[in-house]
Amino acid sequence: MEEDKSTNTIEPQKGAQQNPIHWPKQAWTHFELVRQKSPLIQCITNFVSMDFMANTLLSAGASPAMIHSVEEIPEFTPKALGVCINAGTLTPDWLPGMKLAAQVANQSKKPWVLDPVAAGGSSFRLKACLELLALKPSVVRGNGSEILALFKGCVDSNSKAVDSVHGSSDAVEAAKSLAQQSGSVVAISGAVDYITDGDRVVCVHNGVPMLQKITASGCSVTALIVAFVAVDPSHTVEATASALAIFGVASEIGMDMARGPASLRTLLIDSLYGLDEATALGRVRINRL
Amino acid sequence: MEEDKSTNTIEPQKGAQQNPIHWPKQAWTHFELVRQKSPLIQCITNFVSMDFMANTLLSAGASPAMIHSVEEIPEFTPKALGVCINAGTLTPDWLPGMKLAAQVANQSKKPWVLDPVAAGGSSFRLKACLELLALKPSVVRGNGSEILALFKGCVDSNSKAVDSVHGSSDAVEAAKSLAQQSGSVVAISGAVDYITDGDRVVCVHNGVPMLQKITASGCSVTALIVAFVAVDPSHTVEATASALAIFGVASEIGMDMARGPASLRTLLIDSLYGLDEATALGRVRINRL
Amino acid sequence: MEEDKSTNTIEPQKGAQQNPIHWPKQAWTHFELVRQKSPLIQCITNFVSMDFMANTLLSAGASPAMIHSVEEIPEFTPKALGVCINAGTLTPDWLPGMKLAAQVANQSKKPWVLDPVAAGGSSFRLKACLELLALKPSVVRGNGSEILALFKGCVDSNSKAVDSVHGSSDAVEAAKSLAQQSGSVVAISGAVDYITDGDRVVCVHNGVPMLQKITASGCSVTALIVAFVAVDPSHTVEATASALAIFGVASEIGMDMARGPASLRTLLIDSLYGLDEATALGRVRINRL
Repeated sequence: MEEDKSTNTIEPQKGAQQNPIHWPKQAWTHFELVRQKSPLIQCITNFVSMDFMANTLLSAGASPAMIHSVEEIPEFTPKALGVCINAGTLTPDWLPGMKLAAQVANQSKKPWVLDPVAAGGSSFRLKACLELLALKPSVVRGNGSEILALFKGCVDSNSKAVDSVHGSSDAVEAAKSLAQQSGSVVAISGAVDYITDGDRVVCVHNGVPMLQKITASGCSVTALIVAFVAVDPSHTVEATASALAIFGVASEIGMDMARGPASLRTLLIDSLYGLDEATALGRVRINRL
Repeated sequence: MEEDKSTNTIEPQKGAQQNPIHWPKQAWTHFELVRQKSPLIQCITNFVSMDFMANTLLSAGASPAMIHSVEEIPEFTPKALGVCINAGTLTPDWLPGMKLAAQVANQSKKPWVLDPVAAGGSSFRLKACLELLALKPSVVRGNGSEILALFKGCVDSNSKAVDSVHGSSDAVEAAKSLAQQSGSVVAISGAVDYITDGDRVVCVHNGVPMLQKITASGCSVTALIVAFVAVDPSHTVEATASALAIFGVASEIGMDMARGPASLRTLLIDSLYGLDEATALGRVRINRL
Repeated sequence: MEEDKSTNTIEPQKGAQQNPIHWPKQAWTHFELVRQKSPLIQCITNFVSMDFMANTLLSAGASPAMIHSVEEIPEFTPKALGVCINAGTLTPDWLPGMKLAAQVANQSKKPWVLDPVAAGGSSFRLKACLELLALKPSVVRGNGSEILALFKGCVDSNSKAVDSVHGSSDAVEAAKSLAQQSGSVVAISGAVDYITDGDRVVCVHNGVPMLQKITASGCSVTALIVAFVAVDPSHTVEATASALAIFGVASEIGMDMARGPASLRTLLIDSLYGLDEATALGRVRINRL
């Protein structure tokens, strides 16, 4: 577990800053804040991911609430510290609740995060995701294909829907442009995760390939991003990178004992619950591009 | 595993009875009845809990059916031996089915159990839960905050929705009053579980704190209560206590090997499936308050 | 693991063929095709099964998409290599999407498979399943009770809904007739699985009894059938048998280490992911009736 200090200790912003960020320390600090504050995170998400997402948030110390009814959003959403909106099993009747929750979160000055699942899969889905994007999420997290679909604004004829057919690095320039246009931080997950505000690009090198074999692992890390951003809303890029790194570290620890995707999922949640500072500091790998 | 006989062998009702109840024996008898009769339990529940709830019922020997359509309730519900109604991911379109199933269960003289998830989370949710409560469930099972919300009939501004911010003991007096008003047995789960018919209060001391880190563990124990009450509907308090104790015992056994919340969930279900009489008798801890 | 060659190497069709099928080899070839082609499989399924079904497909190498909205089916379904339609938590609003997806799959010459969950549970459910059956699925997979309900076209008053009260062998003649009438391959799963096109009957002897204690294990094997048929649509009977055998083998391997139904589910998915040729060839047990 040799640590490359030059990788993990870098300038936070071009020029100005005096003290370099120590990314692993920052990731751990964010995680500790989640455990201490136990932020209430409202999730309006797809049917596939609800269980894994809720358990990810609980094991990280957050407090999930899967509440999507238009009737209670005006009253409930202001109590949440962050909102996760995920387009996975989208139908027209779920959209008004998603939009309303986004608006209420904005009014309440709470961060909300968009997961544009399979954005390029159909015109209906793409349009819905673009409408949600126009409501200015704090963060958009997707795979390379999803981010490219949002950027191009057109349906991908080769789309395998939830599985990316593009590497995360291919989509980095698109992500920067999308971040500039939308005002949202854009995160692409993949072999390397990229997080950008349109100017800076931060890379996270944690995680294991087998995560792609676990349904809703992307949805779950998006929920974790909400929790991390909720406890540090003024550092969205950093908190997003911290969440991706901590989730990735938990998967790496799980991988040491996993016999396949199902045991990896179990071990990932267990590891997230039990993660200690020394392990996190030794494993988190984040740098500036 | 020293057994305090004075704890487990007590008077079943004030005064009258000659033979004290041996609670662990009674819990085991209830569990055996579930395994023998394999009661068909209809669940109208939230999206998060369906998988865990169905697997809990199956591992206990019951036969779950997740059927919520208004179209088939009049024909299907009478075949069920018990009905579980859970307000978790409530929307207005699910309410008519819940109410109809409650009414059909009542007409068929079958027990039904209400899980008022996050009752204090919003006015819409509270109103729905109170309307369901007015349909006279055999049992209402919630955490302290949920039972207090039903009792007070007002939304909790501090509500963390699904996670209780009140200890179970704080809510005992409210539970007694609620049971008297509603005619339902009220069960509060927490560090200690309390079950009351408005007169007697029975305490269950089984379970582990980590259950709070597993989404839908409360929903799942509610479903188990339905199965236990379904096989002994004339002893609702006792059957409810038995279900809470057996579920708690399964979690305790699971905890011996668990590395975190996800492995605990797996081990809990496995333990429920494999639980034997000697272990149950040695571990069940129930007493009168 | 003694192999009865006479069981596994038999005539593929009455009379005509010269080379006997080696069923284990064929099952492995089908599985390898799934891993190589990674077919996109659209699933319109019940809320209980989504997680397990998606993870089963992913661990087998396929690419699941849980997409059920009428709005995107005309555009999305043609991209899929196969469609899985499951009646589990049926409500009237889901039926149009199911029918449309079936029709689009037919137009696109893609196989689709029907899982008539609890077909005999109510008139509403039976009617819906019969309407779907009339749209000519490539395969119908159910337990004995479900297939009998479709064949008889009447509601089963003893129905336990999702759990079969009939052995799979009882339903074989009904399955043959149903296959002849409908033009679909009919698969009954149980202690022995039977697959018939109305003429041939193929038996699969893999699997373990504890699968009945895991919710949605039937739904998940149906999804696997879609993936196997999708990569070899001109051999529907054989591909269906291969999928049932490979899933059964994965459960057998899992059973060696399982402590109960929950760990079996985890181990089954892990085993499906890691299954190698030698193990598959040594364990697959398929024969002609």
